[in-house]
Amino acid sequence: MKLGIVGLGRMGGNIARRLMRGGHEVVVHDLSSDAVDAVAKDGAIPAASVEDMAGLLGEPAVFWIMLPAGAITQSMVERISDLAKPGAVIIDGGNSFYKDDIRRARELADKGIDYVDVGTSGGVWGLERGYCMMIGGKTSVVETLDPIFRTLAPGLGEIPRTPGRDGKPTADERAELGYIHAGPPGAGHFVKMVHNGIEYGLMQAYAEGFDILAGKGSEKLPDDERFDLNLTDIAEVWRRGSVISSWLLDLSATALAQDGKLNGFSGSVADSGEGHWTIEAAMEQATPAHVLSAALYARYRSRVDNTFGDKLLSAMRYGFGGHVEIPQ
Amino acid sequence: MKLGIVGLGRMGGNIARRLMRGGHEVVVHDLSSDAVDAVAKDGAIPAASVEDMAGLLGEPAVFWIMLPAGAITQSMVERISDLAKPGAVIIDGGNSFYKDDIRRARELADKGIDYVDVGTSGGVWGLERGYCMMIGGKTSVVETLDPIFRTLAPGLGEIPRTPGRDGKPTADERAELGYIHAGPPGAGHFVKMVHNGIEYGLMQAYAEGFDILAGKGSEKLPDDERFDLNLTDIAEVWRRGSVISSWLLDLSATALAQDGKLNGFSGSVADSGEGHWTIEAAMEQATPAHVLSAALYARYRSRVDNTFGDKLLSAMRYGFGGHVEIPQ
Amino acid sequence: MKLGIVGLGRMGGNIARRLMRGGHEVVVHDLSSDAVDAVAKDGAIPAASVEDMAGLLGEPAVFWIMLPAGAITQSMVERISDLAKPGAVIIDGGNSFYKDDIRRARELADKGIDYVDVGTSGGVWGLERGYCMMIGGKTSVVETLDPIFRTLAPGLGEIPRTPGRDGKPTADERAELGYIHAGPPGAGHFVKMVHNGIEYGLMQAYAEGFDILAGKGSEKLPDDERFDLNLTDIAEVWRRGSVISSWLLDLSATALAQDGKLNGFSGSVADSGEGHWTIEAAMEQATPAHVLSAALYARYRSRVDNTFGDKLLSAMRYGFGGHVEIPQ
Amino acid sequence: MKLGIVGLGRMGGNIARRLMRGGHEVVVHDLSSDAVDAVAKDGAIPAASVEDMAGLLGEPAVFWIMLPAGAITQSMVERISDLAKPGAVIIDGGNSFYKDDIRRARELADKGIDYVDVGTSGGVWGLERGYCMMIGGKTSVVETLDPIFRTLAPGLGEIPRTPGRDGKPTADERAELGYIHAGPPGAGHFVKMVHNGIEYGLMQAYAEGFDILAGKGSEKLPDDERFDLNLTDIAEVWRRGSVISSWLLDLSATALAQDGKLNGFSGSVADSGEGHWTIEAAMEQATPAHVLSAALYARYRSRVDNTFGDKLLSAMRYGFGGHVEIPQ
Repeated sequence: MKLGIVGLGRMGGNIARRLMRGGHEVVVHDLSSDAVDAVAKDGAIPAASVEDMAGLLGEPAVFWIMLPAGAITQSMVERISDLAKPGAVIIDGGNSFYKDDIRRARELADKGIDYVDVGTSGGVWGLERGYCMMIGGKTSVVETLDPIFRTLAPGLGEIPRTPGRDGKPTADERAELGYIHAGPPGAGHFVKMVHNGIEYGLMQAYAEGFDILAGKGSEKLPDDERFDLNLTDIAEVWRRGSVISSWLLDLSATALAQDGKLNGFSGSVADSGEGHWTIEAAMEQATPAHVLSAALYARYRSRVDNTFGDKLLSAMRYGFGGHVEIPQ
Repeated sequence: MKLGIVGLGRMGGNIARRLMRGGHEVVVHDLSSDAVDAVAKDGAIPAASVEDMAGLLGEPAVFWIMLPAGAITQSMVERISDLAKPGAVIIDGGNSFYKDDIRRARELADKGIDYVDVGTSGGVWGLERGYCMMIGGKTSVVETLDPIFRTLAPGLGEIPRTPGRDGKPTADERAELGYIHAGPPGAGHFVKMVHNGIEYGLMQAYAEGFDILAGKGSEKLPDDERFDLNLTDIAEVWRRGSVISSWLLDLSATALAQDGKLNGFSGSVADSGEGHWTIEAAMEQATPAHVLSAALYARYRSRVDNTFGDKLLSAMRYGFGGHVEIPQ
Repeated sequence: MKLGIVGLGRMGGNIARRLMRGGHEVVVHDLSSDAVDAVAKDGAIPAASVEDMAGLLGEPAVFWIMLPAGAITQSMVERISDLAKPGAVIIDGGNSFYKDDIRRARELADKGIDYVDVGTSGGVWGLERGYCMMIGGKTSVVETLDPIFRTLAPGLGEIPRTPGRDGKPTADERAELGYIHAGPPGAGHFVKMVHNGIEYGLMQAYAEGFDILAGKGSEKLPDDERFDLNLTDIAEVWRRGSVISSWLLDLSATALAQDGKLNGFSGSVADSGEGHWTIEAAMEQATPAHVLSAALYARYRSRVDNTFGDKLLSAMRYGFGGHVEIPQ
Repeated sequence: MKLGIVGLGRMGGNIARRLMRGGHEVVVHDLSSDAVDAVAKDGAIPAASVEDMAGLLGEPAVFWIMLPAGAITQSMVERISDLAKPGAVIIDGGNSFYKDDIRRARELADKGIDYVDVGTSGGVWGLERGYCMMIGGKTSVVETLDPIFRTLAPGLGEIPRTPGRDGKPTADERAELGYIHAGPPGAGHFVKMVHNGIEYGLMQAYAEGFDILAGKGSEKLPDDERFDLNLTDIAEVWRRGSVISSWLLDLSATALAQDGKLNGFSGSVADSGEGHWTIEAAMEQATPAHVLSAALYARYRSRVDNTFGDKLLSAMRYGFGGHVEIPQ
């Protein structure tokens, strides 16, 4: 198929490359002409603007937007919807809030334009491993775009098949190839959002576990209860036959193999919107999400020194017990 | 009654004074002779050592230990049990772990010595307000000591009586005076331990609420959603007719009245053992205690900069997404 | 002053009464004519409709809406704004979401109508104790309405004054009377929202503590570590001189005095929007709120049997360990 | 090597089999003679008692105990230590509390017996996949036993090697084969304990995520925000290239492939001691562990209907607001 990709950052550029390797024709645009040139060198058709891209794509045009979620993506959706003809498709491959997708799909439908949201996991590894995709949109449109998704997805590869899936009439073959049509507009990003919420929880579970391991050398403990544990080897051994093996553990093992103290990192941990939105979704359904919110809060906390609330605790302790803070 | 008090710190000295005001005869000892002199000046009989105290008390001797929990209290219990005669009573008024009480009571019973554990709340305010006490021990012994507890307790005072308590045959009158016989040895400190666990939870609830209020001025929010809130006035108004009025809020209001920024505090918050033990007790009973453990962890976190776990989160993020830490 | 009150439920009716006792003239309306009659019997002027009320109020009219937050309040604000003259004031005394207040104030400003949001705490006790109020709105309007707030507020009463507040030039005298002008529109409900968030946290801290006390009789514990604790007396004694005394504890003591097993309650706990919104506000500011969200989730969890997630845990355990569920 | 295995349950029997496949000579004993017969049929030497086993093993004897942690394992350790000769080795391959290991190693050292603790992950899959092992004990003893561990471990297999590990002089080759010598006695079970703590956290993260996905069909949501998601396909697609792929996810996908509703499970989730001990270890080091404790509490909560604390919440709500419980 032929499609245009707007936004050639870490993800967009590699998506373009993987599509070209799969035989698709890709028109690319980015604010940075260097980014455009780099992908063009690998065979993409450069576009100087989205208007230019629209011209190069012909009809029906398919636009894949791969930009930071929020205002930037929103304004690009609007800009493309102004110049696109009825029958065009706008794909948002970023991490948009799923309610924005629902709204956009409704607004674009009035203009005869289809909107598809694709939650994409795989990070910087997607070019080689393929992208795991969760897709929201009208069934007919998602089916038309299938060749694109099939190319981007990892495919069956060497991952063992899930016992008992085979032959189930309800099982969608696409899931085994690494992509699903999750539901109507918004459903793709909703599933991806929960995916990221889970990701935060998994990461924090490992983080707390390694914190406890690291602390076991503490001088406050009795001598025979202190262990000088080799975290690099522990991460490695857990990769091999343990119940908690995972790709995140593989990445941890890689980082710890380089430096068992992780001295290159300060530990100030960013969060993108999905963790926050996952908690909102949980609250809208009255679903407890202790672990997922604790994981999110741990990131917030990693980015500040003491909070006002901490000071208030000290002030109360001083108030009722005359406790003076001990310098730590 | 006549009793000896060992340990004349913030709590012990005032307990001695309140008892003397109530007409009791008090023999006092402390490692610091200054502390002994200060209480002796108010009428107590000074003892140069616990041996000296034993002599001054006669029989049956009642010892009230008011020392830091753990090894110091344990060694004093042992020292007194070596010199006390059968029929003596050892009261531990500190914050001992209730399982230590159970063990001590069993050990002392072999020597004919009774052991009573008294959990005491009221902090530095107890001299004036009286002490809220939770008592564990044999019924006959607790009854013998009743004059002491009655003096130390706040009494009915001006606190409104609980509707519906009156005349209930099951209601123990002592509870309304501010002390209870909770059960056998250990029960006093157990109830006090849970009291402190709750205290941590309450404090953290206020701390988080005020954190959110304080953050509402953040420049990251849209202008009309930013509020420049007066936290001093908010704490004050909540004292007056709101559902969340409490003594801890009173203390918060006092601290905020002095300095709405609480600049005198760093926010490095200590914890004594009770929070930890409360969680252990919860786990032994398979009782969820999300709030109480979160409150404890917030204190731990207030005392460190970034954790190893935080660094591991950053390392994973770098691993899957090439995310570089942003200086905050 | 003269004002109209729309909505005569548990709160509205008593607000009307307290205002009349304070000498204000009150026009009342409710869908239920019984509710109107009941308040009219106490001296209020009945209105058959809001249109009728507008006529009875004259100009500038002051409307106090006391209805369930959400669609019902929103539609009443719209209805009144359609019939009110410029210069009128609409007060929302319910528990609206503060962002709705911000929006409404902006919309009504275009019509020359002022909007004031009043967060009100005090529940069914407000008629006697007075209402603790947190007010958002334009300064001039809040000052004009001051006689109303002064009447509704508890006043200084017998609550001891906060040490160190007196004479501070920055301290607003109104806070000591039980109401504050928190800031522009929305600020009143924002502070009330956080108040309720804290309330959830405080309640859950007590709930977990009493759970641990209740469980201490468990047959799974060694005999000398089992205590048969009297929860009624424990709640009572904590009211008297302890660090955790509070109004919520008073209420707990009252309930436990009636029935120490609380058999009249199933434990299915509702939540209104404020807990949810408090977490949203925390997330918008990247403020950790472990305790407040855990408290909210505990309510969600109290309303369901096992979750799908619980089943997934069982399924995984079966998968890796062949663990079969044990009937509990 | 020649060794004895006491306890032929789900784990012990397969450990015996894997050792025999690796050429080791295995003497086996179990209270159930059926269990002994089953393994003997596969080539093991049956022992009628541990005394019998000791005779069959000769000297120096190596005993591998694979029994439920706690009193049963403790009493077997004592029994073997009474009959074993100096130079013998007792291996505890179960899930003992690491402080018990430390104590046992000290006690057995007096008798000239070595004690080795082996934390074993891999569950029912270990026979085929191999066992991931974390070993605590004296270096010389662990080295002597190396042939056993090497046979039981998964070996390099097809798991990709961790980039950057290769050639590091600090990297222990054994970690890549699937076992580590973590440190002195206790260290093996300590690392395994934290492993299980992490396992709980990971599982709960998935559980909450799937709960949120499952709830998205809720009738309380607006129509266009409701999704009828296929959880079976979502679990499958996340296995393929996503950041959250893991073995636990593989198991989830398998379970969901059989029944997307998991109707065969009630969701009453057991916990063994490790989650609890992990939290204790965290508290002893003052390390926050929000996620790991939340995961543990979720299991506790899955096993009860409403708690006493829930009822107390209802009672307070009734107290301040007259809120009556709504049947859910």
